Amino acid sequence: MLYGVSVGPGDPELMTLKAVRILQACTVIAVPRSGSENTLVAFEIARQAVPEIENKRIMELSLPMTRDKQLLEEAREQAAKTLMDLLDAGEEIACLTLGDASIYSTYMYLHNRIVKAGYPAEIIAGVPSFCAAAALRGKQLTEAALPLHIVPGSYDCVEESLSWPGPKILMKSGKQLGRVKALLKEKGLLDQAYLVQECGMEHEKACPLNQAEDAGYFSIVFVEDKI
Amino acid sequence: MLYGVSVGPGDPELMTLKAVRILQACTVIAVPRSGSENTLVAFEIARQAVPEIENKRIMELSLPMTRDKQLLEEAREQAAKTLMDLLDAGEEIACLTLGDASIYSTYMYLHNRIVKAGYPAEIIAGVPSFCAAAALRGKQLTEAALPLHIVPGSYDCVEESLSWPGPKILMKSGKQLGRVKALLKEKGLLDQAYLVQECGMEHEKACPLNQAEDAGYFSIVFVEDKI
Repeated sequence: MLYGVSVGPGDPELMTLKAVRILQACTVIAVPRSGSENTLVAFEIARQAVPEIENKRIMELSLPMTRDKQLLEEAREQAAKTLMDLLDAGEEIACLTLGDASIYSTYMYLHNRIVKAGYPAEIIAGVPSFCAAAALRGKQLTEAALPLHIVPGSYDCVEESLSWPGPKILMKSGKQLGRVKALLKEKGLLDQAYLVQECGMEHEKACPLNQAEDAGYFSIVFVEDKI
Repeated sequence: MLYGVSVGPGDPELMTLKAVRILQACTVIAVPRSGSENTLVAFEIARQAVPEIENKRIMELSLPMTRDKQLLEEAREQAAKTLMDLLDAGEEIACLTLGDASIYSTYMYLHNRIVKAGYPAEIIAGVPSFCAAAALRGKQLTEAALPLHIVPGSYDCVEESLSWPGPKILMKSGKQLGRVKALLKEKGLLDQAYLVQECGMEHEKACPLNQAEDAGYFSIVFVEDKI
């Protein structure tokens, strides 16, 4: 069995009881690596809650962050094959994924391939980063009659999203922070925007967006509704 | 201290380690009651993960589900006062909330009042129902370049939401199921809609929306994108 285990956004205490139980029971811990980073963030979170995973077989999956479709395709195919070979060998695998697996995660691309090939796989839901960031701010994300929009912050849909009613959450907008700030300023929304970085991690920061100069990958911008 | 403790959508194992620790440490467990229901759903979830809360002081908060603004206002004022009296008496309170506190929860209305009055309060994030329902379906909620819309399913914005790019999640659309189905049919989206009821609870059900005749309060409709 393959489990896609959501480890939450950063604070190891935001892992679920189910995630902990499955990590304890699995024989292999699979961890995506997107580049040459020294620490595997999802592994670090899981290790703090379940120290014994250090002694299990760790399988790194190389999954570069790129928009080159062929590269992505090849990397996902290779990672899925690695997992299927382990399943064929009778291993029980926990594949770690940050935040919640269903929200902009790379894990799902592996999951879909593996299920299609006939292997059993299960997703363990977790706390998405935007819920933890809202808790940190002490703010609700929603208003009773209004929708909430989760927007991939480095794609073109950001501009269109600003015209929809209700609050917006711009995910992973770090790299495009300048562009996002300019857009919000143009629409008169900059003063209603707030930035949370690395929520629940060591270098957690939260500030009004207009006070932020730059931001890393784990950045979330909250845009309140005009009303 | 008051803690708004998200208990997740139903499966007690989807509670976080932090929620468990705080329930163990608190002296009072506050539970919203919306009407004359026999079981307090959030309490039942928490009790299965942390049985010792049965022996703590339980404080029910009467918070009727109504759109009558004055009734709502009065009930929230009264519930907030109950919590503040307990804080004045030196109690540590865990106020339970289903799913995640920041997503369409009643708890936040109490939280905002209590913080405004100068009391310390903290939100403990949890797994939202739509993440657990996506995991149950084995599906991702998002596509890389597209936004995701969380829509309160019994409000007027449902119709408008169907014109936005990206998938939609219609929350708590049980009572309005007929209307939602008619709208989706009109827009040619009924075959792309899926219903999950009582995810992680005893009577969990999941089926294509066009096969569903009725639905209860804990219902989520997923509408896939046309693309």
